[in-house]
Amino acid sequence: MRIHPKYLFLNELSVAAALLLFGSYAYAQLDPLPSWSDTGPKKTIIEFVEKVTTTGSPDFVEPTERIATFDNDGTLWAEQPMYFQAIFIFDRIKQLAPQHPEWKNKEPFASVLKGDVNGALAGGKKALLEMAMATHAGMTTEAFGQIVNDWMASAKHPKTGRRYTEMIYQPMLELLAYLRANDFKTYIVSGGGIEFMRPWSERIYGIPPEQVLGSSIKTKYQVQDGKPVLMRLPEMNFIDDKDGKVVGINQHIGRRPIMAFGNSDGDFEMLEWTTAGPGPRLGVMVHHTDDKREWAYDRDSHVGRLDRGLDEGPSRGWVFVDMKDDWKVIFPPAAK
Amino acid sequence: MRIHPKYLFLNELSVAAALLLFGSYAYAQLDPLPSWSDTGPKKTIIEFVEKVTTTGSPDFVEPTERIATFDNDGTLWAEQPMYFQAIFIFDRIKQLAPQHPEWKNKEPFASVLKGDVNGALAGGKKALLEMAMATHAGMTTEAFGQIVNDWMASAKHPKTGRRYTEMIYQPMLELLAYLRANDFKTYIVSGGGIEFMRPWSERIYGIPPEQVLGSSIKTKYQVQDGKPVLMRLPEMNFIDDKDGKVVGINQHIGRRPIMAFGNSDGDFEMLEWTTAGPGPRLGVMVHHTDDKREWAYDRDSHVGRLDRGLDEGPSRGWVFVDMKDDWKVIFPPAAK
Repeated sequence: MRIHPKYLFLNELSVAAALLLFGSYAYAQLDPLPSWSDTGPKKTIIEFVEKVTTTGSPDFVEPTERIATFDNDGTLWAEQPMYFQAIFIFDRIKQLAPQHPEWKNKEPFASVLKGDVNGALAGGKKALLEMAMATHAGMTTEAFGQIVNDWMASAKHPKTGRRYTEMIYQPMLELLAYLRANDFKTYIVSGGGIEFMRPWSERIYGIPPEQVLGSSIKTKYQVQDGKPVLMRLPEMNFIDDKDGKVVGINQHIGRRPIMAFGNSDGDFEMLEWTTAGPGPRLGVMVHHTDDKREWAYDRDSHVGRLDRGLDEGPSRGWVFVDMKDDWKVIFPPAAK
Repeated sequence: MRIHPKYLFLNELSVAAALLLFGSYAYAQLDPLPSWSDTGPKKTIIEFVEKVTTTGSPDFVEPTERIATFDNDGTLWAEQPMYFQAIFIFDRIKQLAPQHPEWKNKEPFASVLKGDVNGALAGGKKALLEMAMATHAGMTTEAFGQIVNDWMASAKHPKTGRRYTEMIYQPMLELLAYLRANDFKTYIVSGGGIEFMRPWSERIYGIPPEQVLGSSIKTKYQVQDGKPVLMRLPEMNFIDDKDGKVVGINQHIGRRPIMAFGNSDGDFEMLEWTTAGPGPRLGVMVHHTDDKREWAYDRDSHVGRLDRGLDEGPSRGWVFVDMKDDWKVIFPPAAK
């Protein structure tokens, strides 16, 4: 069954009446992607959705196979000046410092406590992993979810002063809603922590926890005083990045997506896997080109590096969203 | 929104008309669980579903939180004389033997080729794992899915002569449909192989691949002649049994179920975790008590051992389904 977005709330008669009464205002209401400019990417996306949802079309795809996967950092929300989860880790280290007097003299913790971000990140992946384990493990899954929710409710982005959950991309919110209105299942497939996203993904993106894939640490089932809990262990379970995204999609979803959205070379394999399947397929890369309203970066960035994707994507038929030209709005209106 | 099963196909007026015209036949059609005897378990299940789906009820549960998990072997289909996946492994060894002349002199393969099941299983878990790896790895995920489908279409159960996909429990099919009609998401959470179930779970149970959890081996993303594939590796990834079921549920679903169904001590932790949550919860154990229509086994069985569950389940409020007394029918009518 194909539901054209304009019929979601209004039947044909009331659409006609609304057009007569409200003119262009009503028209804008009917556009499923009002924050997208009327440029190539919007047209390609809408054409794709219409052909796979039109019964009798040679490109028709059964609703059960309408799987769309989205990277999170840099695709659904911003990732500058660094991954928001890294900021969360730094904040947690500062908060936990009183219980860890040894951190004052131990890198990378000492740098974090001095406010020296570059020093903290100098140890590379190993240092980041050490900090992640020190702040993400040793409590129950329930307790960690509460910590994430509390942080999201209070922490603010250093440049914009917005909550991190307001650093999401308005055009992508519209796209998620548009796809779901057309019977797509929308998934997050992120290199970020799965338990860092799940507490708020449904409220913010409309994506329920069971449709969130991410990196994870191991957990252990324990019964404490008769109460079963899952304890978070300081040990990696799965890294959901690059080829890991395809492994994760197969493990978790068990179907190949027909649409995939990313913004970096970490999403290359996900788009490759998605677009290599039979039938209609669409791969989309969000290109960060707007240094006024957001940030401009690609080949040389320390986060969201997009290099191979820029070289090979176009010949593979992937669509590139130029944020500066293709998005009328970047972020939703800030909450009061 | 709560949909009472009797309104699924008929509106109120036509229900009334049907009752007048067809009497008890129509009544039977309206029973959501016609293969269940009107005994305790059926009543408890229906009462539970009605209270969690009644708007305004103190026990009302939002549709998004209506998660029900089902073990597969011994809960949704039979598991005697041994797990069906073990029979699949033996059949695969026989089929692959020409390419493995060394198997003739190497246990446990030699015993399988001689038709000596006990000999093949004498090596315990280690031997079974070795046979699983030899038959489940070394091909793409796609090729493995085809092998499973081909086997399901041709192999027959040694006792009943039915296809294995006809060795499913009719009362559980009705229960799955009843729960879904009441906005539950139904999941398989099985110790069996995830890729052994996914090729047919949607067709047979109405459970899509993304709602199937199971044990898995590792896969590796590779691009072969420009075509990306996932190769299956001879290395365990995850064992979805006992406490692993809870870990898997958290990893995959990210919510705690409100209903869980099992039949063995391998499901103990899943029921424990499910029923320990706040609000209304229901844990159900299928007890194999019917040695005429199916098999009777519990504490001393080599498959589906139910011992601790029998001791502790009743005081935890878990419901036990006595297959002999509580199910009018075991298997659906066989396909022609």
